[in-house]
Amino acid sequence: MTTRILYFLVLTGFFVSPQSAIGQDEQAFFIKNIYNTTLNKGKSYDWLYHLSENIGGRLAGSANADIAVDYTYKLMQSLDMDTVWKQPCMVPVWERGDKEEVCIKWNSPKGKKKQQLNVLSLGNTIGTSKKGVKGDIIEVFSLDTLDKMDPAMLEGKVVFFNRPMDPSQIRTFNAYGGAVDQRVFGAARAAKHGAIAVLVRSVTLRQDDNPHTGVSQYEDGIKKIPSLAISTNDANQLSQLLKQGKVEAHVTNNPQVLPEKESYNVVGEIRGSEHPEKIILVGGHLDSWDVGGGAHDDGAGCVHALEVINVLKMLDYKPRHTIRCVLFMNEENGLGGGKAYAKISNDKEEFHLAAIESDAGGFTPRGFSCTAEDEVFKEYFTSFREFGDFLSPYDLSLKAGGAGADINPLKSQKGLLIGFRPDSQRYFDYHHTSIDRIEAVNPRELKMGAAAITSLVYLIDQYGL
Amino acid sequence: MTTRILYFLVLTGFFVSPQSAIGQDEQAFFIKNIYNTTLNKGKSYDWLYHLSENIGGRLAGSANADIAVDYTYKLMQSLDMDTVWKQPCMVPVWERGDKEEVCIKWNSPKGKKKQQLNVLSLGNTIGTSKKGVKGDIIEVFSLDTLDKMDPAMLEGKVVFFNRPMDPSQIRTFNAYGGAVDQRVFGAARAAKHGAIAVLVRSVTLRQDDNPHTGVSQYEDGIKKIPSLAISTNDANQLSQLLKQGKVEAHVTNNPQVLPEKESYNVVGEIRGSEHPEKIILVGGHLDSWDVGGGAHDDGAGCVHALEVINVLKMLDYKPRHTIRCVLFMNEENGLGGGKAYAKISNDKEEFHLAAIESDAGGFTPRGFSCTAEDEVFKEYFTSFREFGDFLSPYDLSLKAGGAGADINPLKSQKGLLIGFRPDSQRYFDYHHTSIDRIEAVNPRELKMGAAAITSLVYLIDQYGL
Repeated sequence: MTTRILYFLVLTGFFVSPQSAIGQDEQAFFIKNIYNTTLNKGKSYDWLYHLSENIGGRLAGSANADIAVDYTYKLMQSLDMDTVWKQPCMVPVWERGDKEEVCIKWNSPKGKKKQQLNVLSLGNTIGTSKKGVKGDIIEVFSLDTLDKMDPAMLEGKVVFFNRPMDPSQIRTFNAYGGAVDQRVFGAARAAKHGAIAVLVRSVTLRQDDNPHTGVSQYEDGIKKIPSLAISTNDANQLSQLLKQGKVEAHVTNNPQVLPEKESYNVVGEIRGSEHPEKIILVGGHLDSWDVGGGAHDDGAGCVHALEVINVLKMLDYKPRHTIRCVLFMNEENGLGGGKAYAKISNDKEEFHLAAIESDAGGFTPRGFSCTAEDEVFKEYFTSFREFGDFLSPYDLSLKAGGAGADINPLKSQKGLLIGFRPDSQRYFDYHHTSIDRIEAVNPRELKMGAAAITSLVYLIDQYGL
Repeated sequence: MTTRILYFLVLTGFFVSPQSAIGQDEQAFFIKNIYNTTLNKGKSYDWLYHLSENIGGRLAGSANADIAVDYTYKLMQSLDMDTVWKQPCMVPVWERGDKEEVCIKWNSPKGKKKQQLNVLSLGNTIGTSKKGVKGDIIEVFSLDTLDKMDPAMLEGKVVFFNRPMDPSQIRTFNAYGGAVDQRVFGAARAAKHGAIAVLVRSVTLRQDDNPHTGVSQYEDGIKKIPSLAISTNDANQLSQLLKQGKVEAHVTNNPQVLPEKESYNVVGEIRGSEHPEKIILVGGHLDSWDVGGGAHDDGAGCVHALEVINVLKMLDYKPRHTIRCVLFMNEENGLGGGKAYAKISNDKEEFHLAAIESDAGGFTPRGFSCTAEDEVFKEYFTSFREFGDFLSPYDLSLKAGGAGADINPLKSQKGLLIGFRPDSQRYFDYHHTSIDRIEAVNPRELKMGAAAITSLVYLIDQYGL
């Protein structure tokens, strides 16, 4: 170890961790430079401020999504990449409308009572008539329970799905996975049994008044009924009321499903000097839900990906492989961008050596997880894990696991798919809500994420896999 | 692996991490129970709410500190421990007073300007006369620079220490350690050279209007001069103004130093069934600074320690070693409680097999760091690292490093000293400010900390070291 390296490692407190083994001085030193540059001169927070506050929520197909495409296209052009382009893809168009209300009525010991709930229509849901729909509420805790119930109990009812996320899960994405079926499939399943509308407990571990929207899907041949998320506080209260007697809901909303339209992935690349045909992709998704600012989901991922390019440029790094930054359109509502990207890439017989997606928020990095086709996974994973020597001083761990929805269709190219894994505890507090705004993002945590991803891109570029 | 274990491990997604190796079914299962119980039924957040919001800031020697002693003493009694007691210690008494102001004046192209800064007197500082003190401001970036300056430049001046925390440090405690000397020693050093007052840039990485207080120390034989923290926004602005010309400060404050008084550590224990003479200590410090609610610093540590007992009791666990919960008084302003505890413990010839302190906030756990006397460290550390097999599925790592200020005096007993290490990125955003309140604490992150510490206490109790 050179004196210079030793000196900066001592200065930065690396030796707190006795197991940190720095194998290669040059790479270790460059990674420290990546962190210094990102933390001192990074732009990710400023860009995220613009994306989430000045532009705001940017549902695929919306005017805001178009503005975000233009903004990031120009931003990429300003980063001095070799090529920047907009890649067309088709996206659905769903508009929330200006009225969404759920009013509940019940008999209390003090007489008739009524109350407005905190609601958000779920993505793709149809609207009611102007007068809305009325029906008694019935609480259920799973799709399967619903299927086993006497259909007479469900006919004409408003079905209320109220299974919470499991708080005892350590990683909140597991808890999300265990509850989100109610939001995605609830309306179709309830309609099959004669229900007239669906209320879904917001898919979050937080107790508050913020409803969480998100995608919902109908089934061909099954009647479409409106479905809305209600806040967790309202869900708990409603559940209590239902223990005491009948509660009627009056549901009104007016979203519109319009014809699909063309939108764009925004793509830019620096051509590799030695292996231009091998691509290292880094990306996030540019669309968000319409409410809030899409700051963590997934403005953070977009500015992470842009910052990778920015920092490598600031460090005057000339990559050996092609480094491509992709801001995918429409992850939230059908993956139009991810599918279009993979199709075009496959048609061109491209090879993505690695694709890294950041779509878990701008929180403190914990590491990366990766996946690949079975036949190549073991070899890649062995190489990938060796980066741990460089990354563990930055408290980053490397695991097997999921990668990202937008890059998954690239799996057949037999490269390595990698998901950036920031701390997950707060992610679902903000997910798909009006509070997913810049205030929810800590500047340092965001920048640490960009530095972590840039470091991994650099290591893959240096060593291959 | 039993089917039951396998089942819950699959359910909880443990197999995402291929390197997780669960050696012992029974212990792995119990740790999962600790997490389930803490996350589902833990009280830490409720207790912290009371401590930080209903009681509030609780500087040692204050009425609030007395209230906090009574509250936690009764709380410990309610936890069905074998013994609960108040352990006397002497603490300094410093009161902030009701007036602290720094008004700056300068000549701008548009004429004379003045502005109030956002300030907080530093702990132990003396006050000015009612009329305050006035002097030109001189900016310096280190104590050493000051010593090398022409004394004539400092005579009658208000010295402004403005070296920021280094944002390129990965762990913020390292950045804090690199800047805090200005706050602690700045007044004494500046007074030595004839300065009349000191302003110190708040020791934080955040850019905002919140001044951060904290301990400052005078030197015997050196004149005492007032010292106040100013916010980072004000520090930046002041620095800019000083580049343009002279800036005069008018400093007024009226804190009081009163005679020291008796206060208490609050202590409770469950006697060990096999090795009652070997103590596993878990603690935090009950005092905080007077502003804000002392939520992260260190209400979080106190409720972590209390929750360890609560969860083990809920699980009906009978420890083999004595488990002692200690809420130390006066960590912030002289370590009176920690010193008194160690003295009494040494006088009784007690042996702390392990002492764990939580004093880094209620953020997502990253792991633990440990230290011990050189002659015993290696043996302990080897045993300690073996717990990694149990704790890595919970994303906890075990390292060598610091433990905690309150428990450090126990080192001579030749046990293992352990510091709980939550994520550090946001800690200094709130540290010693009026915004260290319950809103800054995420309930899940707090509870995860309690579960992590309880798990480590359990493992040490099961396996020894």
